[in-house]
Amino acid sequence: MARPPPDRTEDAWIRAILPRFGADPRVKVGIGHDAAVVALDGRDLVLKTDTVVDGVDFRLERCGPEAAARKALAVNVSDLAAMAAVPRACVVSAVLPRSADFDLFDRLSCGLADAAREFHLAVVGGDTTVYDGPLVLTVALAGEPGPFGVVTRAGALVGDHVSVTGALGGSILGRHLTFAPRLREAHVLAEGRIPHAMMDVSDGLAADVPRLGDASGVGIDLVAEWIPVHDDARRMEGPLSPLAHALQDGEDFELLLAHAPLAAEALASLAARGVTLHRIGTVTSERGRVRLVTAGVPADLPRGGYDHLTRGVPRT
Amino acid sequence: MARPPPDRTEDAWIRAILPRFGADPRVKVGIGHDAAVVALDGRDLVLKTDTVVDGVDFRLERCGPEAAARKALAVNVSDLAAMAAVPRACVVSAVLPRSADFDLFDRLSCGLADAAREFHLAVVGGDTTVYDGPLVLTVALAGEPGPFGVVTRAGALVGDHVSVTGALGGSILGRHLTFAPRLREAHVLAEGRIPHAMMDVSDGLAADVPRLGDASGVGIDLVAEWIPVHDDARRMEGPLSPLAHALQDGEDFELLLAHAPLAAEALASLAARGVTLHRIGTVTSERGRVRLVTAGVPADLPRGGYDHLTRGVPRT
Repeated sequence: MARPPPDRTEDAWIRAILPRFGADPRVKVGIGHDAAVVALDGRDLVLKTDTVVDGVDFRLERCGPEAAARKALAVNVSDLAAMAAVPRACVVSAVLPRSADFDLFDRLSCGLADAAREFHLAVVGGDTTVYDGPLVLTVALAGEPGPFGVVTRAGALVGDHVSVTGALGGSILGRHLTFAPRLREAHVLAEGRIPHAMMDVSDGLAADVPRLGDASGVGIDLVAEWIPVHDDARRMEGPLSPLAHALQDGEDFELLLAHAPLAAEALASLAARGVTLHRIGTVTSERGRVRLVTAGVPADLPRGGYDHLTRGVPRT
Repeated sequence: MARPPPDRTEDAWIRAILPRFGADPRVKVGIGHDAAVVALDGRDLVLKTDTVVDGVDFRLERCGPEAAARKALAVNVSDLAAMAAVPRACVVSAVLPRSADFDLFDRLSCGLADAAREFHLAVVGGDTTVYDGPLVLTVALAGEPGPFGVVTRAGALVGDHVSVTGALGGSILGRHLTFAPRLREAHVLAEGRIPHAMMDVSDGLAADVPRLGDASGVGIDLVAEWIPVHDDARRMEGPLSPLAHALQDGEDFELLLAHAPLAAEALASLAARGVTLHRIGTVTSERGRVRLVTAGVPADLPRGGYDHLTRGVPRT
């Protein structure tokens, strides 16, 4: 048995069991990145799975089966984008409530087929089960490294700038269902050999920035005033500030990357190709430390964001 | 919207939505076989997903997390065996009941790591979610074609013998958790170029024999007296005969194959390598028709076996 972890968080639980999944020379990128890379028959396969659940990741009654199916695929595509990989084929498991009728199944398959076309990949198989519970959709996505190789979470260098590709916060108002995975943007960045480390913002900056820092063995200072806050974050009701929403909400599915400082003309050239980098901070040598600098004053940023164990509560 | 299928069965639902998942030249074997084969970066990838659910495929309280995790992996390995493919890497999605503690997670990961060692493959990633429902484990398995290529369900020829690799029925008494996927057997058979068509018996002969026949565009006559009935089928209580259990129960995970008639010495040579073929019938030209010949008298065999939509009821 593994030693019980200090926190009830997904990251802590995974860390505790990780030693069990020993080193295999074929595994080039394993557990702990957005997707895995495995040498298969002499070529690199990129492999990823992610699950969405009615009542946790969407509300079937409100969004409908098509949007649920699209989200199931899109969250996986976003993870392949985060590695600058190219999604090619997926298999889908649908665990249906016992009450499910053909209409539900049909509309799920419609949403899935449309999303597969949108992301230029093939649905090649699946599995269907009925049970006493809410709809669970699991997609596993296989792809290839992009032409410029894969980018992982490890590789951020001290002094690197930390940037995101778009505004954050309040995705729950709708974008968590309709977001466009940043596949094209990732490939433009990879083509320019820009990202030293990259991931997608799925659980909020407060969760994901520490993950990028940990994987790279560095610290990161974020600057509060630089963080692009989405209009949706300002429209959120409740006690949290728009900035807090940008830090905590998650499901923005923007790219988060560390890169060498870029000249204005390099940024302009990226922007001309549709990729806007919003600098939000700097990589530091203070391994394991993430700080938020507000009006010039740094303060440790508590790890937060969406945790799948403690916060698996309805999101819409 | 697709036309509603006549039956509430998994096969009928899949058939109804199939046209939506159009032909992609990279997909060599798609929906409707034990696993898919996709050309990826110039090489063939074999991809499969299967889900097991507490209360449907196992009873967590009785079997424990280790056995549940092993089953989640083993059912997928069996599908790769059915194609004579070689499993290499998997990703795992665990949807945990909200009450889950670290002990459950730890024991699941233990069972998974042990099973991965048993099947010589790597666990390269996964996803964890908590929700209000029973444990759901989905594995997606990636592999390579074996050295002699893949075998599909299509390819049975009129006059072929139909055989299975072991006795059937009553798996619910325990074998549905402890079975050994017939990976080695499949590769011995493929090496001898023996199977014209192959699949694993997961839903019972009454479900799976018609699938093999349909995929190959042939009919199959089974001979009741030839079907190897497992001792477990004889130990089952209830109204069904041992033969009915062998036909209907499923989860035997033996290989079902169509092959050219084999001389006694070829069968002996296979047996010497640990592969016993039990002939159960013959391929006929009566496309779509599966008959059971009892004491020389043929009768149509109603499609039966385990259906994931109508029969998704507790199995142990």
